[in-house]
Order: sequence, then structure tokens, then C-alpha cells
Amino acid sequence: MRGSGAVTRAVRITRRRGERTTRSRDALAVEEPLEIRVSWEEPGRARTVEPLAVTMRTPGDDFELVAGFLHAEGVLRSAAQLAALTYCPGPEAQEYNVVEARLAPGVGFDLERLRRHVYATSSCGVCGKASLEAVEARGCAALPDGPPVAGAMLPGLPDRLLEGQSVFARTGGLHAAGLFDRDGSLVVVREDVGRHNAVDKVLGRAFLDGALPAGERLLVVSGRASFELVQKAVMAGVPTLVAVGAPSSLAVDLARRFNQTLVGFARDGGCNVYCGEARIT
Amino acid sequence: MRGSGAVTRAVRITRRRGERTTRSRDALAVEEPLEIRVSWEEPGRARTVEPLAVTMRTPGDDFELVAGFLHAEGVLRSAAQLAALTYCPGPEAQEYNVVEARLAPGVGFDLERLRRHVYATSSCGVCGKASLEAVEARGCAALPDGPPVAGAMLPGLPDRLLEGQSVFARTGGLHAAGLFDRDGSLVVVREDVGRHNAVDKVLGRAFLDGALPAGERLLVVSGRASFELVQKAVMAGVPTLVAVGAPSSLAVDLARRFNQTLVGFARDGGCNVYCGEARIT
Repeated sequence: MRGSGAVTRAVRITRRRGERTTRSRDALAVEEPLEIRVSWEEPGRARTVEPLAVTMRTPGDDFELVAGFLHAEGVLRSAAQLAALTYCPGPEAQEYNVVEARLAPGVGFDLERLRRHVYATSSCGVCGKASLEAVEARGCAALPDGPPVAGAMLPGLPDRLLEGQSVFARTGGLHAAGLFDRDGSLVVVREDVGRHNAVDKVLGRAFLDGALPAGERLLVVSGRASFELVQKAVMAGVPTLVAVGAPSSLAVDLARRFNQTLVGFARDGGCNVYCGEARIT
Repeated sequence: MRGSGAVTRAVRITRRRGERTTRSRDALAVEEPLEIRVSWEEPGRARTVEPLAVTMRTPGDDFELVAGFLHAEGVLRSAAQLAALTYCPGPEAQEYNVVEARLAPGVGFDLERLRRHVYATSSCGVCGKASLEAVEARGCAALPDGPPVAGAMLPGLPDRLLEGQSVFARTGGLHAAGLFDRDGSLVVVREDVGRHNAVDKVLGRAFLDGALPAGERLLVVSGRASFELVQKAVMAGVPTLVAVGAPSSLAVDLARRFNQTLVGFARDGGCNVYCGEARIT
């Protein structure tokens, strides 16, 4: 079985409503593993290819997903560091569940650090502070002040994100992430069964377009704001992150440390601002 | 900074409702990294300790989380294979964000396979089929037929799960997972910012109690049913998984292959049965 590339798949299900059961068809969000491989050259040696991670994702926009993931992990700083993105040919046919990112000559890569998925293992153990410092260690500086954002616009952004989603995504519960410009227009929207994947796809698109850091954009996410999502936004230089749900404590700590504006519970005509109020007019 | 152990933290926020802004206090769900270390002995060698993974989690029930994670990953098959779970002492004080699982003598462990988080890297590439086979490779067999489950009870289970949650968890949007017995009584409920963590905590509790495989239980989750959650339920021998949200395609494939009953959209007096209808009376 190779990757299907399809976003939805039809299945037969049994619907139960009280005493009544009916057989019918239903559409499922496709979830398939994507293996991310990285290859790089070192002087005097053949090109090395190593599997880095597997993420369970909804097929589609896979190159954006890989680019966004590698940028957020600090592997890629600019589009020039990426020589190519390719699906990996298998023995019988093109495989659509394995993507190789070929780094440009001279681009360094610390495989073990990434593979361990360990943010920090200093002698003091892992703690929130170490996590914050690990983001700084990826070469991330605090976001500059500004630009101003109209506060009255914020509660309506999730509805605009929803309008940008497909009908299936709305009913089937896929996560969405979108980049908006400062007048509230949706620039790009992406969907996935995993919310971190939706964010990687959106920011990966901007990365591939040479549009990072995205200092004039707002990132809007359909769910909660976790540490991981704030980290991806900070790495992409996005000054304002708006979530429909609640942020976590470490998400607020990270946003505050990097001078990001973090907005939660954006719905029903209101929102909560957790930090970075100075940007909001 | 060491782990706080607290589940919520108070912050000052700005609430915006139309033109009106007010300063107030709000409670955030705490999210902190937990590093999972594994140590084991090999004949004639000193004990080896290696960091395995870091998960962003809500503090609390950390030993259950680690036990559940290691069981789901196939590292632990029975409580007898686990010699001890301990927080790791740091240079200044007990650290609450690093847990070491000491394997009992003679228990083998394939560190590299786990670290890579790669389900399969056969020459055919990664695909859904390989993912399903990777679960079988962990020593998991198809679930036996039965026991019967009353269909009329299913739509109400998420409400009972919600009643078992704390007030904060309901309003702040923490994910919940619960084990129920066959007459619909809640046996154990756990919460976390990560839904896979909530499931690890619940199934880890059962593992530590020697109650796996949990062939007479139902697992109920507050969100969607992903491949990962079905995998954890299958590894724990739970025959029926009930989700408030939608399952993914690969979740249905996995449940079907292992003869599990998978129920989605359990709410508003109804539910959808995606496979394993034979168990439902």
C-alpha cells in the first residue's frame, strides 16, 4: 500500500439514534504517516540520508509541512539552505509518504539532538526554563515591538479562518491554521488532523516563498495554544498569535519572553489577551 | 526553576468585549515538559540510564503517564517488568520533571528503535500498512470477540466523563480520558493538555494495578480518535473505544484489524459505529 494522497475516504458506518440504527456512508479524514528524511553533504564524503521523524498527518501540502517542520526545529534558517524537497522513490512506484529534504552544501545538521526530541538535558533536569532557553538556543531573538493590530478585529478572525476551510474540514473536525494580514484578510489556510501539522504547513508555505520572518502577519489557530505552537510562531517571527481556545502556562511564558502578543478564547465577540497588549490598538 | 507540580496557574489578563477592556485574573492549565528516562541492566555491566522522550504535559499522575507510555510503546508488558519509577534527584532539589523507569533485571530494551519514533522504514517506505504491522510487531494480537456492550449507553458516556472532570478542566479545555466498566460506571479519569497523555495516564494506572489487558472496560476520550489513541487502546486490550469527535481513516483501519469496536461522535443522544458492531447489543 502506498500513500493515497487523498484527504478524505468513504466508509460504511452504523448510525445509532436512540433505538434506531441505520447503515450509511461517512467520510473520514485521512491520517497517514509521513516520514521526514534529511540528507546533507560533508566535505570529502558521500551524501548522507537519515530518517528524522515520522508524523501522522493528513496528506497534502507535504513539502510545506516538511519545510515548516525543519524551520521550526531550527534546521533551516532560509530557503537558500534547502536544495530540494522530493518524494522518495520506492521499488515499485513513487512513494507519497516519505519526503527527503536535501540541505544545500555547507548547511550543518545535528542529527542526534533532533532525534532525541529532548529540549534540554542539562544537569538541572528538564524544566520550563530550560525549554524556553532551548528556543533561544535555536537562534531566536525577541520579536521587535509592533506592528499595531486593531483589537476590534481579533474576535472575528476564527470565523474567517472557518470560512476559508473546506466543508468537510468544518464538519469532520480537522484542525486549521491561517496566516492573516493586518487588515484581517486571510492569506493562506491549511488543515490537518494534527494541529501542529496545520501550523507547519502554513508557516512552511511562507518559508518556501521567502516570506519569513512574517513580521506583518497574524497566525490564527482553530484550537488551543500550546507551547509547541507558540514556539513555531516565534521561530517564524510572527508577532501576534490568536487561538480559539485556551493557552497553556508555558505558552504564555514563551510568548512573554519573546515579546509576542498572545490572544486566546477569540470567539463570541470577545477575546482574552495574555501578553503583548502594547501591540493592540 | 523546577517543576511546580501545580495543575493550574493564575495570570493577569486583559479581557476584550467589543469596545470594553477589563483587567482580570485567569487560571491557565499548566504545561511543562516531562523527560522520560529508562534504565536497565545487562549482564556484567553497570546500569545504563538513557533519556528516551520529552512530552509536554500537565503535571500530576506522572508515574502513571510514564508507565502508560512505556506500555503503549511495547517496552513494558507486565508490571513485573518494572522495578521502580522515581523522580530524578537534581543538584539542588528533587526534580519533578524527570522520571526514571528502572526496568527489572533481564528485561530487554531497544533504545534506538524507540528514539527514532519511526514506525517502519522498510524498503517500501512508510505507509499505513507498515504502521499497522508495526503495532503487530509490538506483540499485539487481535482482541477476542465480546464482551457485549449496551448500545443505548454509548451516547451518554462522554457526559459522564465530563462529570468526572474538575470544573477547571471543563472550562479550560483540558483533554480527558476515562475507563468505564460495562454498566457505564466511571472507573478512572485523567486529564492533560495533551490527549495522548490523558490516555497514557488512565491506561498507566490500570497497568500499575495489574489490570491490563482491560478486556471488560470501555475507554472514552473527550476529543477525536487518532491512530495513536487506537493503538494505545489496542495495546491495553480495551475492546471498545468511544470518542466524542471523529476518528481518522487510519484509526478505523487499525481498530478493524484488531477487532476493536470504534465509536465516534458520541453526543446528543446518538453515535456512529465505525467497526466492531458485533459487540453492541
